[in-house]
Amino acid sequence: MAETSSAGVGQAPLSGTDRTRLRRISEEGRTDRAELHAVLAAGFVCHLGVVLDGAPMVVPTVYGATADTLYFHGSVASRSLVAAPDATVCVTVTHVDGLVLARSVFEHSVNYRCAMVYGVPRLVTDPEEKLEGLRVLTEQTAPGQWDYARRPNRKELAATSLLALDLTEASVKISEDPPEDGEGPDAALGIWAGQLPLRQNWGTPVPDPVLPAGIPVPAHIVGRTF
Amino acid sequence: MAETSSAGVGQAPLSGTDRTRLRRISEEGRTDRAELHAVLAAGFVCHLGVVLDGAPMVVPTVYGATADTLYFHGSVASRSLVAAPDATVCVTVTHVDGLVLARSVFEHSVNYRCAMVYGVPRLVTDPEEKLEGLRVLTEQTAPGQWDYARRPNRKELAATSLLALDLTEASVKISEDPPEDGEGPDAALGIWAGQLPLRQNWGTPVPDPVLPAGIPVPAHIVGRTF
Repeated sequence: MAETSSAGVGQAPLSGTDRTRLRRISEEGRTDRAELHAVLAAGFVCHLGVVLDGAPMVVPTVYGATADTLYFHGSVASRSLVAAPDATVCVTVTHVDGLVLARSVFEHSVNYRCAMVYGVPRLVTDPEEKLEGLRVLTEQTAPGQWDYARRPNRKELAATSLLALDLTEASVKISEDPPEDGEGPDAALGIWAGQLPLRQNWGTPVPDPVLPAGIPVPAHIVGRTF
Repeated sequence: MAETSSAGVGQAPLSGTDRTRLRRISEEGRTDRAELHAVLAAGFVCHLGVVLDGAPMVVPTVYGATADTLYFHGSVASRSLVAAPDATVCVTVTHVDGLVLARSVFEHSVNYRCAMVYGVPRLVTDPEEKLEGLRVLTEQTAPGQWDYARRPNRKELAATSLLALDLTEASVKISEDPPEDGEGPDAALGIWAGQLPLRQNWGTPVPDPVLPAGIPVPAHIVGRTF
């Protein structure tokens, strides 16, 4: 898979540290910041990896990304953050786009887009950045809700811990190709081969059972698409 | 959220070790093996967490689960397995079921099902178990393909590393409730609240560009549903 040639967003290319330099499937590695941001923008749940008592712990959590920072709630990482407040984390965002169905089981694979970000998150304490970070996280998870729902008050802000991770050490892998055994001897087997796409879609909004009648579903909720 | 009372599948309940005993959101914790297996059976991509040079690394990979074992490819973990062959891993499987849209931003959340499994994986060397493990992994990822596609030959089996993780130390969290601010003061704000479901669906199969004409798409591919 060729490297892309898009110019990014005027920022430095993704760093190539020892752990983000792709080894096994280098043709799937991308080094462009625009691709990182595209993968991050396409989702709202990441898998956060931390080390706790020497063992890994991987938890899903919502995030929001700006051009240079990934924000996520501190509560999900509280155990590890208490244990090691300056420890490196790994945040992985994955979109599974479909199955690659080959003639042989051995050549089966998955098409996906994946971003991995490493770094030591910092606790956001500046009130302005905290509010802005929560806005970014909210708008990535539920676009339109920051302006529609009631925003956090002083007490709620104090009860929320927000972490910020610099988007400096990151890697992106994208796999989007058809099966690779179409030119080999297995092509003569008469076995169907191709891709089975996997898609996500938003369903019909389900009102809270205690919602009073007469409150319409806002357009940004009922009309949400991927 | 109440604990379920289903009886499981005749096995021991999930272990409650220090790291799988849920702390922060205990009402979402389930302890039933049937719930673990239901979450594992509903997907085929996990996020594998390992510790490499003291830092976490989280990579997505396909898996297959039996009643007592989770199988995954060793290649994705090769860097860490070389570095620490007896090290603990954390395998997390997450299904995002939708957004919980509350009256206040603070009460927004995500409905999800998540299983976390900890353990030290073993490399599968027994040929019979390796073939069976690959069958389980293949059938979970692409049901029907083990019998339809060409199975691995001796050379391909040798080139494949398969890891097995016992399903003994695991936890399950399920969040499926409506917003929690429907009875509080924010209910008077006239803001719509409820759930926005998120679903996955398989698209139309896309034939390999080099697939000869006349090979039909098998029913197990074209008819796949969640």
